[in-house]
Amino acid sequence: MSWIKAVGIGPGSLEHMTLQAMDALKECDVVIGYNTYLDLIRPIIQEKQIIGSGMRHEVSRCKKAIELANEGKKVCVISSGDPGVYGMAGLLLELSAKEGLDIKIEVIPGISAVNMAAALLGAPLMHDFALISLSDHLTPWEVIEKRLDSAAQADFVIALYNPRSHEREYHLDTALEIISKYKPKGTPVGIVKNASRDKEKVIFATLESVPIEDIDMTSIVIIGNKNTFTIGGKMITPRGYKL
Amino acid sequence: MSWIKAVGIGPGSLEHMTLQAMDALKECDVVIGYNTYLDLIRPIIQEKQIIGSGMRHEVSRCKKAIELANEGKKVCVISSGDPGVYGMAGLLLELSAKEGLDIKIEVIPGISAVNMAAALLGAPLMHDFALISLSDHLTPWEVIEKRLDSAAQADFVIALYNPRSHEREYHLDTALEIISKYKPKGTPVGIVKNASRDKEKVIFATLESVPIEDIDMTSIVIIGNKNTFTIGGKMITPRGYKL
Repeated sequence: MSWIKAVGIGPGSLEHMTLQAMDALKECDVVIGYNTYLDLIRPIIQEKQIIGSGMRHEVSRCKKAIELANEGKKVCVISSGDPGVYGMAGLLLELSAKEGLDIKIEVIPGISAVNMAAALLGAPLMHDFALISLSDHLTPWEVIEKRLDSAAQADFVIALYNPRSHEREYHLDTALEIISKYKPKGTPVGIVKNASRDKEKVIFATLESVPIEDIDMTSIVIIGNKNTFTIGGKMITPRGYKL
Repeated sequence: MSWIKAVGIGPGSLEHMTLQAMDALKECDVVIGYNTYLDLIRPIIQEKQIIGSGMRHEVSRCKKAIELANEGKKVCVISSGDPGVYGMAGLLLELSAKEGLDIKIEVIPGISAVNMAAALLGAPLMHDFALISLSDHLTPWEVIEKRLDSAAQADFVIALYNPRSHEREYHLDTALEIISKYKPKGTPVGIVKNASRDKEKVIFATLESVPIEDIDMTSIVIIGNKNTFTIGGKMITPRGYKL
């Protein structure tokens, strides 16, 4: 019986993988993924057929998975973090439904980058939060601006994915400007680069002191709500308990 | 060397725990938690000292953990899902910082309930989303209403925690009314009850057909954005790829 599993390998280090993800990788015939993510799990997939590709080949990776499953193979398509959060799960389900594929597809959740970043910063996501990607590769920039504005206005904790790249050097500046219309300058901001990977770096700042130049595509930026504070080197958003 | 770890045990079934969480539970002396969550991991903590308590004893659980760590113990304080998302991490860090505790506290992330629910529904969280708890036990209801309004207006996918209980039977109705001001009646809504536990149930509905009576405190409700659709028994929010 062939199958396809969209497997979340977690943020980086193998220790953050779930037992279910480990089992899926153990039981499959083929592992398909973005080269950088395949490298993260290389030690545990050495006996498998491995099909790697570069950035922005998401559609062809899913098509390859469907093709191989049709040939009777058990296929894992990996995502870093959680395949259901800006990952491969949606595309895989959509393509296979469109092709009328009669093969079981399962989504295996993983620790997503934002949960890992939060754990390294302390506990900034203890209250309602909004996750926003600053990449306008697949989303109109006006939609992103509208979401930033609304989330800041309603005092959500805001977590930014894809905050800055060479192609969009100024998106983060614009985003912080929008957020600063509603949140005070002293609002704590936590930045985690390469969470759970080599060169991991945790930075504490405030809305007026974000080290823009230090931030890249490997970074997650978390901006607090009006109750968030920093104490003892930890960023904490309280839930509201009386202490 | 004593320590405290805020350990995310994931949504329920042991297979969703990470290797790091497993290791922490293996290495500790004491496990502290809400009784229902202790039951989920009972098979793997049988040789440990176990300190359970009921709902709303979060503060006393953290104080107990700090007391035991001060006595030299290695302590795991467990949360279901991720301790950093409406879990125990914030309270633990806050209390220990206030007491000037000189003991290492680590947050070990887990698969959070919303990521598990999404995986069971298909891939509803593939784009920007907002997480909102409908519990006004620790948050003023006006703040919750404002967040619902803003998130719906900016077309976020919206995930609701604590959607309905005996104490607040009508919160969900009000929330759906607010959301319906901006999202069309046909917007897909996915509901997962007891994700990854006994009596797990997955329900597909639309904004005008949410089975309110079926929803309780064990449920996660996910409301799509304007591009979300249902196909082949899966709820999918596309990222925007051209297929």
